[in-house]
Amino acid sequence: MNNKFDLIVIGAGPGGYIAAIRASQLGMSVACIDAWSNINGNPAPGGTCTNVGCIPSKALLQSSEYFDHVNHSFHTHGIEISNAKININNFLKRKDNIVKQNNEGILYLFKKNKVSFFHGKGSFFGKENDQWLIKVKNKEESILSAKNVIIATGSIAREFPNIAFDEQTILSNDGALSINTVPKKLGIIGAGVIGLELGSVWRRLGADVTILESAPNFLAAADSQISKEAFKLFTKQGLKINVGIEVKDISYSKNSVSVKYKDSSSNNHEIIFDKLIVSIGRIPFTKDLNAESVGLTLDSKGFISVDNYCKTNLQNIWAIGDVVRGPMLAHKAEEEGVFVAEMIAGQKGHLNFNNIPWVIYTSPEIAWVGKNEQQLKELKRDYKIGSFPFIANGRARALGDTSGFVKIIADKYTDEVLGVHIIGAMASELISEAVTIMEFKGSSEDIARIWHAHPTLSESLKEAALALDNRSLNY
Amino acid sequence: MNNKFDLIVIGAGPGGYIAAIRASQLGMSVACIDAWSNINGNPAPGGTCTNVGCIPSKALLQSSEYFDHVNHSFHTHGIEISNAKININNFLKRKDNIVKQNNEGILYLFKKNKVSFFHGKGSFFGKENDQWLIKVKNKEESILSAKNVIIATGSIAREFPNIAFDEQTILSNDGALSINTVPKKLGIIGAGVIGLELGSVWRRLGADVTILESAPNFLAAADSQISKEAFKLFTKQGLKINVGIEVKDISYSKNSVSVKYKDSSSNNHEIIFDKLIVSIGRIPFTKDLNAESVGLTLDSKGFISVDNYCKTNLQNIWAIGDVVRGPMLAHKAEEEGVFVAEMIAGQKGHLNFNNIPWVIYTSPEIAWVGKNEQQLKELKRDYKIGSFPFIANGRARALGDTSGFVKIIADKYTDEVLGVHIIGAMASELISEAVTIMEFKGSSEDIARIWHAHPTLSESLKEAALALDNRSLNY
Repeated sequence: MNNKFDLIVIGAGPGGYIAAIRASQLGMSVACIDAWSNINGNPAPGGTCTNVGCIPSKALLQSSEYFDHVNHSFHTHGIEISNAKININNFLKRKDNIVKQNNEGILYLFKKNKVSFFHGKGSFFGKENDQWLIKVKNKEESILSAKNVIIATGSIAREFPNIAFDEQTILSNDGALSINTVPKKLGIIGAGVIGLELGSVWRRLGADVTILESAPNFLAAADSQISKEAFKLFTKQGLKINVGIEVKDISYSKNSVSVKYKDSSSNNHEIIFDKLIVSIGRIPFTKDLNAESVGLTLDSKGFISVDNYCKTNLQNIWAIGDVVRGPMLAHKAEEEGVFVAEMIAGQKGHLNFNNIPWVIYTSPEIAWVGKNEQQLKELKRDYKIGSFPFIANGRARALGDTSGFVKIIADKYTDEVLGVHIIGAMASELISEAVTIMEFKGSSEDIARIWHAHPTLSESLKEAALALDNRSLNY
Repeated sequence: MNNKFDLIVIGAGPGGYIAAIRASQLGMSVACIDAWSNINGNPAPGGTCTNVGCIPSKALLQSSEYFDHVNHSFHTHGIEISNAKININNFLKRKDNIVKQNNEGILYLFKKNKVSFFHGKGSFFGKENDQWLIKVKNKEESILSAKNVIIATGSIAREFPNIAFDEQTILSNDGALSINTVPKKLGIIGAGVIGLELGSVWRRLGADVTILESAPNFLAAADSQISKEAFKLFTKQGLKINVGIEVKDISYSKNSVSVKYKDSSSNNHEIIFDKLIVSIGRIPFTKDLNAESVGLTLDSKGFISVDNYCKTNLQNIWAIGDVVRGPMLAHKAEEEGVFVAEMIAGQKGHLNFNNIPWVIYTSPEIAWVGKNEQQLKELKRDYKIGSFPFIANGRARALGDTSGFVKIIADKYTDEVLGVHIIGAMASELISEAVTIMEFKGSSEDIARIWHAHPTLSESLKEAALALDNRSLNY
């Protein structure tokens, strides 16, 4: 096998596999190296997103949401069910099959796009002339070379200090997706996306879920009105969310874990959980790269230092996705992958980080793009707001889920849309219209005047835009 | 009560009530007249859409889709159910409640926006100076006057020649939404939106549904690739769709109806149904307007003749929605309502009919905007196509519904998006991004380069756009 390539991509997550495919489409010879294995030891490309992130969590969220409907809302539809049970093996098996489909899909895409895939750990081995040498280590070792290297090694879950993930009692996102009996009492440290999504999954199946968050405000990254609504709704669903807490001690055995914490009023508590999910953020994954051997610069937080063009300090070495600055989102990694592949091929590109959509797949879903009110206040920017609640939307009523609202923020003088914030059914899909508007630097009047099919949830964006001009039609 | 207004709107469907509210917001004194009553004889504004159209059908579609999931897909999610039953009374009651909420919502909006609502039939009574006189007839009669009149009386279901709707055996969209036992054998004449949606509802509840369509091609209004896929999927679901047939005779009693028809190969058939839905189109509803008394011009098909600005042949009389040319869609009526209200107030406006989205709420849903391939061929326009199947979309896999695809058509030379055609889960919501792109005269490359959150169904639009340039990343 030829071991010389134009480009080697280390990591086959959403950033890496997309970069490899795009580069190959642009005429480069490309190798992509990935170490992830499935339970049979075979390659499982797709990274965190496919194996233990976006995809399996969405599978479990969908199944558990249906189960929640069965238990709580189907009678309103006239559907009578008395004996619904969750079969946890099949619940998990479906998720595993979906992951497998995605793994296989990526291997197929590599073949179709003539990307050479190498199963194993990729690390720097030196440089010969203008060729970077990359070692692939699996059962055997081999050395590949290429002029260009893209590092796309992603991130891993941050451990609680001195409490390693055993994935039995102390769970990362990985173990939290494979619990094989519904825990009676489930603790979650960290009320971010992962904590909320996985907390929702297990709550719907019957777990008593307590979330402990050290930040004083719930979901501080979101617009504060959205966060307040989310807190209200999630609490009503039964999630016990505690913010402003300080974890004092965690001790655990095979079957239980004790968490001692101080609440926001400085009272001390201890809760005994069956399992504990620790979702306190993720850290860039660089440890197996042997990066120091070639002098690759990391920043103080361990991210690979890159400029606006994803260039590292080393010639022809690029880095993308979770392993570099910017939001840890699959679609951010993907677009950086395309961007870098096209730059290497001599094309020009740009990425507007301000217009990256964010999604939390709880129920209701939360999605936003652009700036929120807190940020605009800090920037001292004058703005107008328009909102519309789903309770006044015909489709939401027909759907049986009227929680949440759409909020649009526009420049006070130019009417340019500065941010769109949605909490409600299918927010994940509704946000695409908002991103499109913002990428065109559209105004709220544009949204208000563009056709929206009736009856759809997306009409709520139109109505929020109308509200911004004090001319709501349906509220 | 003051009976003199700046504007009288006849009809409180989506066109009428929106026009009335918008006009009032613009400073006019406005009356809105509507005859629709609920079962208690109280006002039920909202027209066909709210009472016997969009809204109740979506309610039944949602409930029946859940029931279908229970029976056919929940086991794959690990949800074990052995005794699910549909309680038809509760099934219908939920729909009735949703309709009631919408009726009440509109009455509330009238109050909030200071629109004077009159419950009764509105008709022309003459003219005094520049004031049009409109009679409102309910138990009593009163005469209102206004300089401006908007006619928004909508449409009614077309009857099969000599077969009146009795709403017991021979059903329009109205009766088809209130069948109180699941029919064993349900016949439907007409495979349009209404036939397909209501056929889907009753099939999911267990009816054996046969659809008879006289047109030679199934769903000729849609892109032919979409129609083919839809035919395949609906047939697989169990809908028996027969196109190119000719109904020779219909005879019915209280409990059954016989339909004799000739199939496309000229073979004769007779089927005995329990009930028959006739959904062979809708006709403009003008008969109670006394329009001839004032000389209002209708066209040869019975529509009120209007120009591009919704102006009739009579001074200051406008007509909008189903009662005039153009697609019979609620959102078309709404936008015409806003448009005319703003024109009367001296504003300028425009409506681009080419960018009106179309939706069919079957499962999978069908939605499109702009031109389809057949139309572009006829226009001899050079175009490129990109498609992406939902089977390759991660969110669709997680959702458990991977049927269908997205197809984008763009100008061969400029890359301007000319049409977007979707068959798949949530197509109704995904189309809003496509409409936005088209309203901005965006290109397929715009769609391809705009951020799309992962994992979402809307990524399929991005992938279809990439496919158009032969650079699919995930297929």
